[in-house]
Amino acid sequence: MTRPPIVSVPVDLAERSYNIHIGESLAAQLPLWLEQCLPKCRHAVLVVDANVEHIATDVANVLTDAGFRLTHIEVPSGEGSKSLGLLERMWERMLHDHTDRGSTVVAVGGGVVGDLAGFAAASFARGLPLIQVPTTLLSQVDSSVGGKTGINLPGAKNIVGAFWQPSLVVIDTQSLKSLPRREFVSGLAEVVKYGMILLPELFEYLERNAQNILAQDPATIAHIVAQSCLAKAQVVKLDERETTGLRAILNYGHTFAHALETTSGYGTLLHGEAVAIGMHMAGCLAAQLGRIDTELVARQRRLLELLELPTSFAAANPDELWRAMQHDKKVEHGKLRFILPDRMGHVELVAGIAREQAIAAMRA
Amino acid sequence: MTRPPIVSVPVDLAERSYNIHIGESLAAQLPLWLEQCLPKCRHAVLVVDANVEHIATDVANVLTDAGFRLTHIEVPSGEGSKSLGLLERMWERMLHDHTDRGSTVVAVGGGVVGDLAGFAAASFARGLPLIQVPTTLLSQVDSSVGGKTGINLPGAKNIVGAFWQPSLVVIDTQSLKSLPRREFVSGLAEVVKYGMILLPELFEYLERNAQNILAQDPATIAHIVAQSCLAKAQVVKLDERETTGLRAILNYGHTFAHALETTSGYGTLLHGEAVAIGMHMAGCLAAQLGRIDTELVARQRRLLELLELPTSFAAANPDELWRAMQHDKKVEHGKLRFILPDRMGHVELVAGIAREQAIAAMRA
Repeated sequence: MTRPPIVSVPVDLAERSYNIHIGESLAAQLPLWLEQCLPKCRHAVLVVDANVEHIATDVANVLTDAGFRLTHIEVPSGEGSKSLGLLERMWERMLHDHTDRGSTVVAVGGGVVGDLAGFAAASFARGLPLIQVPTTLLSQVDSSVGGKTGINLPGAKNIVGAFWQPSLVVIDTQSLKSLPRREFVSGLAEVVKYGMILLPELFEYLERNAQNILAQDPATIAHIVAQSCLAKAQVVKLDERETTGLRAILNYGHTFAHALETTSGYGTLLHGEAVAIGMHMAGCLAAQLGRIDTELVARQRRLLELLELPTSFAAANPDELWRAMQHDKKVEHGKLRFILPDRMGHVELVAGIAREQAIAAMRA
Repeated sequence: MTRPPIVSVPVDLAERSYNIHIGESLAAQLPLWLEQCLPKCRHAVLVVDANVEHIATDVANVLTDAGFRLTHIEVPSGEGSKSLGLLERMWERMLHDHTDRGSTVVAVGGGVVGDLAGFAAASFARGLPLIQVPTTLLSQVDSSVGGKTGINLPGAKNIVGAFWQPSLVVIDTQSLKSLPRREFVSGLAEVVKYGMILLPELFEYLERNAQNILAQDPATIAHIVAQSCLAKAQVVKLDERETTGLRAILNYGHTFAHALETTSGYGTLLHGEAVAIGMHMAGCLAAQLGRIDTELVARQRRLLELLELPTSFAAANPDELWRAMQHDKKVEHGKLRFILPDRMGHVELVAGIAREQAIAAMRA
């Protein structure tokens, strides 16, 4: 099988412009890309999810061979690692290893490692360059693009952090092969989301290529990842620091999803599974309000199911979900707002949804 | 005595543009200025140096009367407060008080409070607006402008932090009256520095008005503070994040000063005192190298002494100072660089100074 070509997505932001490279077996290219974006860098702080040490070993070997000095920091898998205690130990290790502005932080792992290492990069010596090497589908199509970094405090997710754009994102689709199937499938929900909010062609592509996607055909995966990154970069460019509100469209399905995650207990549903169910609920709500016809709701549901994603959750209690939504941190001045489609590839921010309307949609 | 008018210095940076207002009894204006730069803000997190609680009380009363909700955080005086432990407690308090992007952080105090509160603002909820109300001369002419924020780790000053520009700086020159005279005088060293590196007119103004300055005449103080802020803003604009190297000229006298502070034990010399001695050493070195004539060295020395600043330090050991300089964090790839004048109001970055030359200058 010939290896598909590398797809490169340029991201052009006010704060920083950088490239996302997508393909297979990309570790060997890393020194060249580093040389292009950070010509003076000679020291890399590798922050690695313990689950993907085998991928990190490749990266470490390539960088060592290219003459880089390495600091290797392994981070336990899971949300618990986004803690101040771990961050402090990372800062101390970086200090001990003479990390300075001629160093770069390289994050190898999923969203947890990207968020944690990203904030370590943003805050050490008032800011070091950051290279993202996301290894889960969710982080490849979502968190590695957009510059959000941070840690949790007890009782508050992502409450301490920074907007800190990477200097380079390297997406090796081979790393998806070591991912549990359920986690891979879960990440597809965010891809469907980009189709619904911005890219009708991507939605249609997903409909036509569901089997190749589930079989993880390299060229197909590279295409949908690249399209997702393009979509996210396009939205982020309009609202880099969440000041204009435009970035909110990325939260399509997420108001319902966060409520589902909270009420079911984090971990019961994977994030993407909750988003899939949430998008179906948002679609039902939009149809109920006459914003879209029921055919589009059904079409979205068919695609989600084709991709083996859930569209309902038996244990969900609409009244409980509604109460959880009132505590969502995105509720501004007590006004709950929903992102609802008005046609394929386009969504709007809708305020003033009554309790009865939302509950009816959740029952549907 | 009529109150001098308020002097306003606009600072126009890529990252953020803001105003510095300088005058007497400015607390009453704060709600108006806040309304102008942060129209949606209704909650202020006041971070206050324990030494200036009387100033903070004015600010708190004015904001409360204007309808702001307040969170009041008192910070012990001194460098020890720039710690992770204290920052963590601040984050927790901010979280407890429902701080969000509709809040602003207001720092009332000297450089320590500005650095600490500034980083709390930069990192909470990925960035809150920051108002600086500097109360020492040093922070008024130096640290409140330029966006450097941060805390210390054991063994490393300012190693964790962010570039985070304020939305507003309010400099009330009345707060200088409660400052110990030695601390006030120490701050004047940085004002002389702006004259030497950028503003010959400011240098001449200091020569002509030394008595009014030491008597803290309000209009005279407002003028030199405004000129200093203008100078600093002009340099920072060219190099907001210390990437081009241009910002280095602000370190005139500081390579010697840091070595003096380190070898004498922090606290023996105030920062400004060390800078005054360091500028004299830098002047001597420049004259030795034939970059300036000895008359300029003598003129700088006369002004420093007129302002009651030291130009020598009996306990200084040149060999020891030289060794300390080798460990300065500004030494890039082992190459020590000095900022040296080539005429009044202009300095250059000079590398390749031999040990003997530097030591001769320190002995002079």
